[in-house]
Amino acid sequence: MLYRSWGSQKDEVINFTSSLDSDRFIIDEVKLTMKAHIISLYLSGYINKEIAKKLLIALKDFKEVEEGYEDVHEALEDFLLKKVGEDAGWIGLGRSRNDHVATALRLKLRNELIDILNDINKMRELLLHKAKEHITTIFPSYTHLQLAQPTTFAHYLTYIEEELSSRWEMIFSALKQINKSPLGAGAIVGSNIKIDRVKESELLGFDGIIYNTISATSSRADLISAIAELVTLMVSLSRIAEDMIFFSSIKLITLPDSHVSTSSLMPQKRNPVTMEILRAKAGEIIGFLTSILSIYKSLPFGYNLDLQEMNKYYWLVTSYVKSSLNILYSLFNNIVVNKVEIDKCSLATDDAELISINNKIPYRSAYFEIAKRIREGQYETTLKVEDSIKMKAVIGSPNFDLMGNLIKIREEKLRDDIRRIEEYRLEIISKMGELEVIENGIEE
Amino acid sequence: MLYRSWGSQKDEVINFTSSLDSDRFIIDEVKLTMKAHIISLYLSGYINKEIAKKLLIALKDFKEVEEGYEDVHEALEDFLLKKVGEDAGWIGLGRSRNDHVATALRLKLRNELIDILNDINKMRELLLHKAKEHITTIFPSYTHLQLAQPTTFAHYLTYIEEELSSRWEMIFSALKQINKSPLGAGAIVGSNIKIDRVKESELLGFDGIIYNTISATSSRADLISAIAELVTLMVSLSRIAEDMIFFSSIKLITLPDSHVSTSSLMPQKRNPVTMEILRAKAGEIIGFLTSILSIYKSLPFGYNLDLQEMNKYYWLVTSYVKSSLNILYSLFNNIVVNKVEIDKCSLATDDAELISINNKIPYRSAYFEIAKRIREGQYETTLKVEDSIKMKAVIGSPNFDLMGNLIKIREEKLRDDIRRIEEYRLEIISKMGELEVIENGIEE
Amino acid sequence: MLYRSWGSQKDEVINFTSSLDSDRFIIDEVKLTMKAHIISLYLSGYINKEIAKKLLIALKDFKEVEEGYEDVHEALEDFLLKKVGEDAGWIGLGRSRNDHVATALRLKLRNELIDILNDINKMRELLLHKAKEHITTIFPSYTHLQLAQPTTFAHYLTYIEEELSSRWEMIFSALKQINKSPLGAGAIVGSNIKIDRVKESELLGFDGIIYNTISATSSRADLISAIAELVTLMVSLSRIAEDMIFFSSIKLITLPDSHVSTSSLMPQKRNPVTMEILRAKAGEIIGFLTSILSIYKSLPFGYNLDLQEMNKYYWLVTSYVKSSLNILYSLFNNIVVNKVEIDKCSLATDDAELISINNKIPYRSAYFEIAKRIREGQYETTLKVEDSIKMKAVIGSPNFDLMGNLIKIREEKLRDDIRRIEEYRLEIISKMGELEVIENGIEE
Amino acid sequence: MLYRSWGSQKDEVINFTSSLDSDRFIIDEVKLTMKAHIISLYLSGYINKEIAKKLLIALKDFKEVEEGYEDVHEALEDFLLKKVGEDAGWIGLGRSRNDHVATALRLKLRNELIDILNDINKMRELLLHKAKEHITTIFPSYTHLQLAQPTTFAHYLTYIEEELSSRWEMIFSALKQINKSPLGAGAIVGSNIKIDRVKESELLGFDGIIYNTISATSSRADLISAIAELVTLMVSLSRIAEDMIFFSSIKLITLPDSHVSTSSLMPQKRNPVTMEILRAKAGEIIGFLTSILSIYKSLPFGYNLDLQEMNKYYWLVTSYVKSSLNILYSLFNNIVVNKVEIDKCSLATDDAELISINNKIPYRSAYFEIAKRIREGQYETTLKVEDSIKMKAVIGSPNFDLMGNLIKIREEKLRDDIRRIEEYRLEIISKMGELEVIENGIEE
Repeated sequence: MLYRSWGSQKDEVINFTSSLDSDRFIIDEVKLTMKAHIISLYLSGYINKEIAKKLLIALKDFKEVEEGYEDVHEALEDFLLKKVGEDAGWIGLGRSRNDHVATALRLKLRNELIDILNDINKMRELLLHKAKEHITTIFPSYTHLQLAQPTTFAHYLTYIEEELSSRWEMIFSALKQINKSPLGAGAIVGSNIKIDRVKESELLGFDGIIYNTISATSSRADLISAIAELVTLMVSLSRIAEDMIFFSSIKLITLPDSHVSTSSLMPQKRNPVTMEILRAKAGEIIGFLTSILSIYKSLPFGYNLDLQEMNKYYWLVTSYVKSSLNILYSLFNNIVVNKVEIDKCSLATDDAELISINNKIPYRSAYFEIAKRIREGQYETTLKVEDSIKMKAVIGSPNFDLMGNLIKIREEKLRDDIRRIEEYRLEIISKMGELEVIENGIEE
Repeated sequence: MLYRSWGSQKDEVINFTSSLDSDRFIIDEVKLTMKAHIISLYLSGYINKEIAKKLLIALKDFKEVEEGYEDVHEALEDFLLKKVGEDAGWIGLGRSRNDHVATALRLKLRNELIDILNDINKMRELLLHKAKEHITTIFPSYTHLQLAQPTTFAHYLTYIEEELSSRWEMIFSALKQINKSPLGAGAIVGSNIKIDRVKESELLGFDGIIYNTISATSSRADLISAIAELVTLMVSLSRIAEDMIFFSSIKLITLPDSHVSTSSLMPQKRNPVTMEILRAKAGEIIGFLTSILSIYKSLPFGYNLDLQEMNKYYWLVTSYVKSSLNILYSLFNNIVVNKVEIDKCSLATDDAELISINNKIPYRSAYFEIAKRIREGQYETTLKVEDSIKMKAVIGSPNFDLMGNLIKIREEKLRDDIRRIEEYRLEIISKMGELEVIENGIEE
Repeated sequence: MLYRSWGSQKDEVINFTSSLDSDRFIIDEVKLTMKAHIISLYLSGYINKEIAKKLLIALKDFKEVEEGYEDVHEALEDFLLKKVGEDAGWIGLGRSRNDHVATALRLKLRNELIDILNDINKMRELLLHKAKEHITTIFPSYTHLQLAQPTTFAHYLTYIEEELSSRWEMIFSALKQINKSPLGAGAIVGSNIKIDRVKESELLGFDGIIYNTISATSSRADLISAIAELVTLMVSLSRIAEDMIFFSSIKLITLPDSHVSTSSLMPQKRNPVTMEILRAKAGEIIGFLTSILSIYKSLPFGYNLDLQEMNKYYWLVTSYVKSSLNILYSLFNNIVVNKVEIDKCSLATDDAELISINNKIPYRSAYFEIAKRIREGQYETTLKVEDSIKMKAVIGSPNFDLMGNLIKIREEKLRDDIRRIEEYRLEIISKMGELEVIENGIEE
Repeated sequence: MLYRSWGSQKDEVINFTSSLDSDRFIIDEVKLTMKAHIISLYLSGYINKEIAKKLLIALKDFKEVEEGYEDVHEALEDFLLKKVGEDAGWIGLGRSRNDHVATALRLKLRNELIDILNDINKMRELLLHKAKEHITTIFPSYTHLQLAQPTTFAHYLTYIEEELSSRWEMIFSALKQINKSPLGAGAIVGSNIKIDRVKESELLGFDGIIYNTISATSSRADLISAIAELVTLMVSLSRIAEDMIFFSSIKLITLPDSHVSTSSLMPQKRNPVTMEILRAKAGEIIGFLTSILSIYKSLPFGYNLDLQEMNKYYWLVTSYVKSSLNILYSLFNNIVVNKVEIDKCSLATDDAELISINNKIPYRSAYFEIAKRIREGQYETTLKVEDSIKMKAVIGSPNFDLMGNLIKIREEKLRDDIRRIEEYRLEIISKMGELEVIENGIEE
């Protein structure tokens, strides 16, 4: 314990308030932030090259946080003091845990979001690839869980791809909002130390700075926004999971063996366990967002320790999203679509449309005519299920030809998105190159 | 009742499932969607000019939804049937409630988001204006609700402005995601009607179409994402409300008379009622998001009536956000900052920084020295509160000169944002001009 | 406006903070509270019989709240002032809106909970009645939405009844906790008026008083607890709704015509709309609880206006629960169970159990033997589905005889619960009889 | 892996669906459940004494769950198979993971609730003890965070005690609802094994059985209800935390040194960290409830693996509640109330009441008179703060004498509650004595 100057350090209190569990996730980013701070102090002339060198080298050895500290920042400072001696006390200059943790959280979330954006694109690639194989695979569609009209499995797969694409766009926006630097903002009002906040920002690959030092140190709204976008993705995924559970219940599809489990009592069971867990994780994640929002609501301005308790949820959410995307990838990569007979009553709409168009009578009149036949058990049709699909006339429908075109459009969009995130990633790496150059210059 | 062909229409069931209450919010957008649909049927040759004209003229007379219908779409179709006769049944062609309600929701939310983006900018303008007046108004800062370091009221005001600016950016991204057309997607697989979905999209001022017809009819993820961004804004506002309640409790500020109420028992009270309500609304809105997410989670693909129950929350959220921004505008426009003495212990950090820099000893050592004096009741300082602020050396701090610069930077950013949303709005209006031209051509 | 003595009464502020919308729900209870207060002032000698009489008579005429007041309490006082003159100002003695609204909320929620407890019992009665008809109606059971073992529809129905019974118990506990009087607690510290709080409590049929006046005026924890119990009931009901949607999707049951709707495009649809809405309402209600909890969390002690914004949710929740119970009653009263063939693989467990018991080999060994046969497509059975059910040997299983016994046990429990709530209700009415007697004495 | 007979056991899938992390919390209860099951099989004659003995002895050695299993139940069965040989396969008879986990969860939650009920009583004891010391300690009261009327610290402390008492009552009700046995219900329909479910229930100290085997295996509503009651307790505690933060901010109280921390930048800070964390935990716990409810909502009947993901939240909630009660105990045991001057405007209500009573003019008229003086800056009073408290005339107010009486009433209630939970606990232990007797009989 380093900072606690007010008497007692009872275990119960340390245990109750310690953030070490969630700090483990951001150790690398805390070190990176500290590196930028040390270099900044050196560039501004507050510490000489020798001290800077000692600190940078010692910093590398910090690997994990021992028990007994309030948080990783105190642990790191104490570690440096023990390694380097009193000179390590210079790192306290112009810096607070408040701006350092805000910086580390943004650096970490930046990485996580880039990973997720790439994972989404990988999944979209698989879906479009599979869609090409299933352009003519007949599949029932449902609304209200009642059989609707015939469609194809490619239609279902491109639905998922487009959902992912929309979420990708918003997560990318959130990433750009996250990628701003709070560093140098001190505890709440900045400090008397002539630190170049813009330079620090560039060294860490940020797009710019959070100007106001109150915002920089105590706002978490950008992070909440990013998490909310991930939660939205996750509830979209939960709908896919529900479909898989339902489709396999009525044997439209066969799930891969690796995704089902059996019962300890009933030997015949093929329980869709991965999809049940994904569905449950979506429920959990709704709660994570509620936790974050409930903690954040009504907090006074400036840092409050409540903010610390929000941290673990950022990494829970990103981890859930990544594992869920991976499990869905594995499932769709190995899914089997069974041949099924589709009830002909699903062609009633086609018949009504044909009557309307061919006989030139208003659709509602044709609709009521068919509805009457159905109600009286008289509905029959000469149409085949394939005909229904071939007749579909709008872009985005399962019509075989239009679906072929659509897949090409979507592949184009996907290639564009892959390029956008890769360029963004490379720009960050390129900026951070200077940090490394300066570090090497000091250490040599 | 028009569509219900399955026997009984017991009141209890109609009451339980009717969406009329929330449909009232989107009547104009439902009519606009129907107008585009009618014109699209005319352009594609399914209905002649005469029928189109009758329908377009009758449509104008639809003003409100009577009881007894499932929803506004059924009510509108029945209204047209009664006005125009059997020919109105043509509007059922190539259209479902599923794609129409999806379109109307996006049109309405587009308007609401544009309004909110403008309201945010209006608030930012006020804050920067007030900040210029308060550059030298000394004000205490707090972290953990304990007195931290001296700052200025301009520093506090520009904090809010920057928070609003960040949320503005994400809401603008959400708007662009919302502004895509689901029209022409039918119930779930499109239809056999040769409708030009891209043309429909342009006539309604959309940026493009939702391709896949399953996405178009049954996804609400883009709407959820927009709502989540508004919720994030709202919890940020709740922190301001909390500050106002606390500041007025300890008399740092005087709230405008119009924002306080008294007690029915205690005649001396000046209760900060508007800020309490805003704070509570933030709590409510967290629940609205939870409701939406809980409803949406695990729904099977395709339209489910559950989606209907989400609708009311979109308009509750936008209405709460708008009224909260307005009430804050009124408050900050009339706020009085009281002169207060700031406890000198808030200068301890400045003294530690001075010792460190001037005496060239590591900050931590200087910090412990000051901490010791404080603990022993020996801390005194020759600094004045104003000195503390003048010494602040980083951009974003309350330093008078740096704050002046910052306000200029922020004004520049605000001007840019005002231009961006105005251009976006004009582009929509310009596209929709063609719809009007065609309509006039039919009606003349 | 009566109490607002601090300048401006701008519409925007009044609109933002007014509670009139949710106050409409508690007008009767506010009047009842006021009646008890007036009688209490009379009994304590603060007002004479003549004034008491004038006030009691005027009170009867208060029917609805006009716009322009902060809340129903101010409106009521102003109404009395206008009717009775300055003497009405006596009602301000020893009373605050804080204790009066707390009392009215508890009185109203008491009524709502009693109604719900009776509605639950009515539903349980129907379920047990239907169960007796369906003791031998074969029905499939599912776990993980995969076919499990054969059961009966009576087994399914008694499952719901037992769920309702458990919730009934906790809601009854919540009712007893709600039924305590906050009246006479003033704004926060009581008052200097010698009011007999225990007597007031008895006149209103309460079980006792909330002693501490801070608790009495500003705690809502008892109400939150009651609401949480109703939410728990509601998510239990949502599982039933999900079953109905699934059962009707795969045609195990036919829903009553009055519970299904059709599509505006697809004439063949029988969409289970009431169950979708019930399912969605469960999602909404999760959000209502989140709203309440998020508003309540971290409020300082004593009344805060945030508490007012919680009120509407109490009545939304009770109204949702009541309408959901009613809709389920209507559905189960008219449900048709279709005859279905159950896949024989669901008998695998029975075969494994028979092998184990008859051949005296450990169950796991028998289980693996059957599992092997299934995996290799060799599993066949001589068992009939009915045999499986007859063999079931534990209480609570679908075994025809045991089910008959179980229904008797449950009917006994239900009769007991009907008696318990009726006795509780009569005790309240009996206590409140004295209030009426005194009132009549004053008014005659 | 024991049960997974369907092909692949890829790590990713096992990791995604494994419940080992949360199973660690219930190992003892899973073993206890298994013990009752073994004894039940022995008593019913399915296994002989020798096998029963081997199994019971082996069971004792099961200490922790190794990686690679789906859950603790599979791990335990495999452990017994390895220890005892094929005969261990008998434990699969008449048992499923579904009834066993339901039993273990209830046993564990029963223990946790008993602990919490005792912790609450311990806290109540401290509060009443401290209240006796602070009967005459003057303290300000606030409504809307604005100074209200004078009170005492005893008044504040007894407020907390009464809040805890109300929650205690509902948690005790929840405990009784939890304490019912699902054992013997198999996977969903029971089994063909003649197990005496009532006997099993008694051996485990339950109050009775969950009859219906669907309820028994797949309902979690009783657990949700118990958790909801704990969440209600926790948001009540968060209000206390908020008070402590506010009181220490304006120096009404001094928090114990062990409850405050300092800043890494600002040496003067005394940040109320334990109370901030408690407040944040209340926010987290709202999310936990949301997670549980969102997972549970709309699940089909029968066991779904989603239920497994709810488990960890039960133990998170009980652990948060216990640590929060302990931290509050530590805080109130060492709190210092500072002497403060209370603004005389807080006596305005007393003056208005005196004018009304003494001059026999209606309270509202007196109130307006005082309000006018205040508005015009003319309000003065001859009253002393102590007078205000002495004049308070209702039970539950801070009046010194009445408070003395109230504390006695509350102590009586507390003694009663301590007795009730102790008797309940002893009854459980007594019932479970028979289990031990039988076990010893088998093992000797």
